[in-house]
Amino acid sequence: MELMAIGTVQSPLRSRAEAPKQGDEGAPEAWLAFEPRFADGLDGLAAGDEVLVLTWLDRAERDVLRVRPRSDAARPMTGVFATRSPDRPNPIGVHRVTVTALEGPCSLHVGALEAVDGTPIVDLKIALRR
Amino acid sequence: MELMAIGTVQSPLRSRAEAPKQGDEGAPEAWLAFEPRFADGLDGLAAGDEVLVLTWLDRAERDVLRVRPRSDAARPMTGVFATRSPDRPNPIGVHRVTVTALEGPCSLHVGALEAVDGTPIVDLKIALRR
Repeated sequence: MELMAIGTVQSPLRSRAEAPKQGDEGAPEAWLAFEPRFADGLDGLAAGDEVLVLTWLDRAERDVLRVRPRSDAARPMTGVFATRSPDRPNPIGVHRVTVTALEGPCSLHVGALEAVDGTPIVDLKIALRR
Repeated sequence: MELMAIGTVQSPLRSRAEAPKQGDEGAPEAWLAFEPRFADGLDGLAAGDEVLVLTWLDRAERDVLRVRPRSDAARPMTGVFATRSPDRPNPIGVHRVTVTALEGPCSLHVGALEAVDGTPIVDLKIALRR
């Protein structure tokens, strides 16, 4: 089960310490720059679409199974699968964002995204309307 | 970027042809059977929790960039990233389900899940309350 990077996040966030835990906690807008060979896969996307961006959180630790939620020492340790911690056996980030603009065949501009600059993108899906 | 299976879906769905496109279209309940070595990661989950299950859709085709949505010949071909098609460069499924029961340290029972029996599980996250 080998993932390939289909693109990269371009963001003013330079480190995990700067990144908010979730996109709705003050994350900046970002560009999703796709590899040209995957451009056909973006056909049909438009500004205003809600999408799920899946990223490979390459700064995460993969041998962690318990974390203290939000670094709050008063809370008990919790299994990583009961959290959104980036530290987990397969550090895949799932980010729900709004497409705000398209530029050329392989760049999407999106609203608040908590991923760090340079994070590999591994998938994009239209979000289900709820 | 190498993924490891942390568990397996156990479902009455035996083939992709049987599986509905989305969990809310009549998918059956399923068990998520985790590898014992990841049991600590499940600590803190409880019946009633909404979670995102990430799967590796091992029957999918990875060299497809355009699909015809829902096999409707009248619709135009669309880029896979504008769809939820399992066929895509990195065939990761994202399934939002409700935990209905826990059994022992590494089995979760969940509501409607459209993944086929034997599908590898690669991640589990608590779903954000919206």
